Amino acid sequence: MVLPPGMDQADFNKAAEAFRRIVGDQWVFLGDQLTGYEDPFPVTSKESSRASIAVAPENVEQVQAVLKAANEFKFPLWPISTGRNIVFGGASPAMTGTGILDLKRMNRILEVNEENGYALVEPGVSYFDLYNHLQENNINLWIDSPSPGWGSPMGNTLERGMGYTPYGDHLMMQCGMEVVLPDGDVVRTGMGGVPDSKMWQLFKYGFGPYVDGMFTQASYGVVTKMGVWLMPKPPGYRPYMVTFEREDDLEQIIDIIRPLRLSTLIPNAAVLCNNLLDLAITTTRDEIYTGKGPIPPSVHKKINAEHKLGMWNFFGGLYGPPDMMEVQWKYIRDAFSQVKGAKFYGADDRKGDPAFEYRAQAMQGIPHLTEFSVLNWYGPGGGHIDLTLLSPVTGKDAVTQYQMQREYGEKVGYDYLGEFIVGWRDMHHINFMIFNHTDEEDRKRVYDLYERLTIDSGKLGYAAYRAHTKFQNLVRDQFAYNDYAMNRLQMKLKETLDPNGIMAPGKAGLWPEQYKQFGKGRIS
Amino acid sequence: MVLPPGMDQADFNKAAEAFRRIVGDQWVFLGDQLTGYEDPFPVTSKESSRASIAVAPENVEQVQAVLKAANEFKFPLWPISTGRNIVFGGASPAMTGTGILDLKRMNRILEVNEENGYALVEPGVSYFDLYNHLQENNINLWIDSPSPGWGSPMGNTLERGMGYTPYGDHLMMQCGMEVVLPDGDVVRTGMGGVPDSKMWQLFKYGFGPYVDGMFTQASYGVVTKMGVWLMPKPPGYRPYMVTFEREDDLEQIIDIIRPLRLSTLIPNAAVLCNNLLDLAITTTRDEIYTGKGPIPPSVHKKINAEHKLGMWNFFGGLYGPPDMMEVQWKYIRDAFSQVKGAKFYGADDRKGDPAFEYRAQAMQGIPHLTEFSVLNWYGPGGGHIDLTLLSPVTGKDAVTQYQMQREYGEKVGYDYLGEFIVGWRDMHHINFMIFNHTDEEDRKRVYDLYERLTIDSGKLGYAAYRAHTKFQNLVRDQFAYNDYAMNRLQMKLKETLDPNGIMAPGKAGLWPEQYKQFGKGRIS
Repeated sequence: MVLPPGMDQADFNKAAEAFRRIVGDQWVFLGDQLTGYEDPFPVTSKESSRASIAVAPENVEQVQAVLKAANEFKFPLWPISTGRNIVFGGASPAMTGTGILDLKRMNRILEVNEENGYALVEPGVSYFDLYNHLQENNINLWIDSPSPGWGSPMGNTLERGMGYTPYGDHLMMQCGMEVVLPDGDVVRTGMGGVPDSKMWQLFKYGFGPYVDGMFTQASYGVVTKMGVWLMPKPPGYRPYMVTFEREDDLEQIIDIIRPLRLSTLIPNAAVLCNNLLDLAITTTRDEIYTGKGPIPPSVHKKINAEHKLGMWNFFGGLYGPPDMMEVQWKYIRDAFSQVKGAKFYGADDRKGDPAFEYRAQAMQGIPHLTEFSVLNWYGPGGGHIDLTLLSPVTGKDAVTQYQMQREYGEKVGYDYLGEFIVGWRDMHHINFMIFNHTDEEDRKRVYDLYERLTIDSGKLGYAAYRAHTKFQNLVRDQFAYNDYAMNRLQMKLKETLDPNGIMAPGKAGLWPEQYKQFGKGRIS
Repeated sequence: MVLPPGMDQADFNKAAEAFRRIVGDQWVFLGDQLTGYEDPFPVTSKESSRASIAVAPENVEQVQAVLKAANEFKFPLWPISTGRNIVFGGASPAMTGTGILDLKRMNRILEVNEENGYALVEPGVSYFDLYNHLQENNINLWIDSPSPGWGSPMGNTLERGMGYTPYGDHLMMQCGMEVVLPDGDVVRTGMGGVPDSKMWQLFKYGFGPYVDGMFTQASYGVVTKMGVWLMPKPPGYRPYMVTFEREDDLEQIIDIIRPLRLSTLIPNAAVLCNNLLDLAITTTRDEIYTGKGPIPPSVHKKINAEHKLGMWNFFGGLYGPPDMMEVQWKYIRDAFSQVKGAKFYGADDRKGDPAFEYRAQAMQGIPHLTEFSVLNWYGPGGGHIDLTLLSPVTGKDAVTQYQMQREYGEKVGYDYLGEFIVGWRDMHHINFMIFNHTDEEDRKRVYDLYERLTIDSGKLGYAAYRAHTKFQNLVRDQFAYNDYAMNRLQMKLKETLDPNGIMAPGKAGLWPEQYKQFGKGRIS
């Protein structure tokens, strides 16, 4: 049992009582009922990010009332939608003792417009929910789901997550919000400000300062409704895979992808991953190699041949009328054929290959949980945190990041399992740092590795777009331009909108005055 | 000679002297030197939006110093880049007596990255400047220019303007800003917060709350640098035009465009315009019809035949390898062929047709000034203000807006010259309201028409995305959800960032406490 910092048990009880009066006794959770809000893959200890309470309102009015009570009792709250922010802390708060504002009960799909391609959803709607709704109602729209798909469009978009279809940039595909500000005021953004507007989910910007982005990776309010653009089901879909034999092909591959992606000949957020990440879907390290230290080249060669994999493997999708895809495919195939030894596969060629099939699903927005298989790589107890550095789409940058991360990892006994997700002008380099989250020593090892990689990559100009709550201070520290001017601006907005610091203290490394002691240096 | 509201001549002189000390005597303008900052097409009188002074800093440090002085003297400033915000007030401020902060001297193209497709520009860089720079240096990138092209990427993007290539949504294609806040602090947004980041112009969102949108249509700071994504020059470009015979085809046409645009088979912000708008490029009303009242159907028929026009004319572009464009063209042609009497034209078919040629230029990002020809429609003295209502991409909405605007206009003696610019999920319906800006009676007529149309369209749920300074209060009033909650939020941010109300009072209808008397009702 923990309490918010600086709060005594009596005040806590009063606040809990106030929350109960608002949402009903059965929707306020304490003690053992809070297990589900723990970080599933903690990098320090569960104690360092334990919730004191969870409150689950069922509608906007209750959210307003809860925030009012939180202001009254100066009670810090950490809003979650489905709470599946796995590898970034899950549902757990940045600061131990924070209460969880659990929005799972607000799970209505308020509208789906097939003609114009959008949905309006509440926080608790999961990707599976939305997908199933479209299927059951024969609506010819696709969703874009991250891997895995049990999270929510709301949560993922607000964290600025990505998917794998042409709609992979989730914030770009967001249109219109309803936000309860910390003072309880309810704002509709964009065209939602116009009563009975036809445009709330059709035009993003509204009139005057465009504020939606402010509420992402933020602690400025609780988003209670959000518009999501959905892709019209294309007349055809064609997933493909290209395997590349040599580790050293990386530079050339990325330099080939860049112009294809920039020109949208590759239309989706396509993925280049290393062989171990693919293998980890269907196998474990032990089955491949039982020796100590890095897996030797000879073993790589053998298992790649067995699994028809390259050292690098590219997954892409084409969307549209078949004759158009055929033309696009010709250009893509020609381009990748410059890499000696490149092999090309379509869906028929990889039938029954789970590593291909879940990627083919992801690229058509079918949510899945397959990717969790990789957690067994080193055996039971596996968790992961992802180092998610951004990089220009150049072969040189990819090689720099890959070599550094592989070397640093291997030095402390980890294999490199990673992927480059290529956006329009950026790559998200996702390093799946798998570790045994039940082993304190391993937690410390992975923590130190992540920290060292973040700091040393930062010196080369690479920074993360998203981080585990335990590393958000660290990433925050890298945005140092003009003596942390961005931090000053974001904190000024924070103090204006949330003067009591009740909203998600520590989110994105922003610590209100009330809890500023947690904003200094590494938290553990 | 005017002064800022509430300021006496002595204080004004002190402020002017302070500005001179910062930027040099020759870069502070007074009296007759201010003619260039007047609204070229005033809808009320020039006196209602006259600047008291103009100050032209040459760098960020001078901008900081000017803002410091402005805070000291409580001197309101209206920042402009090239000041070409024609039809929305030009360079003139919303409030008479405001000073102009003219950023034209900050006109460096700081970087163009061909490999990754972007430029980093200062406020004073015009579309022509950027275009010429790319041409002169044989850089294979396109710009996306609005019509006409003498404005700036900075100004147009901050006003949330549009162009006609696939990069037509300018805010979507913006990546990274440098902003001088009203208190003089200099912030770099997105990845610009990371010193030596490789990603400032490659990844939009940075870490923590994403603030860029806040600085558009806003009075929260002075943007001094901005990243603009540029489209790689495609291997082929194919402009086309489709003419439709009957006025009543409108509904069907728009319903055909919607799925083509949503699926990106039509990849660019394509345009459907009525015959008079095309004709006004090459001719005047008198040459067509000298009678009073609306031009009769028989005359329309005759002139359309002469000019190979339809009552509605669609302009689109295809981009990519020729064989890919050929496939796309087949689908587009098939779709539009459903409209009886549709005729199809390529560039060869319309050679020497200025109305086609300037559109074909616009769709490949070549800046031009051709569109000004329409101002001669009724003869000399012609100006225009644009009513720019948003609408869903449905035939029904298009017809509702068109009929209403044509009827209201014709009732007071104006022809309808308009276009629907079809974005991804929205249409910008641009009604070119041409009037004689030298004739007081005509100014009043067009003002009243604009006002009535805005109010009556608002009742149907249609609102503008942008407006002339004289109508920004009116549009602001339409964002009334939850008793003007958005206004409260935007004003709260305003008061935090600009407590002295020095920055662009009245911008987007946001009036600081100091000038709140101007925020009530219609300003004239």
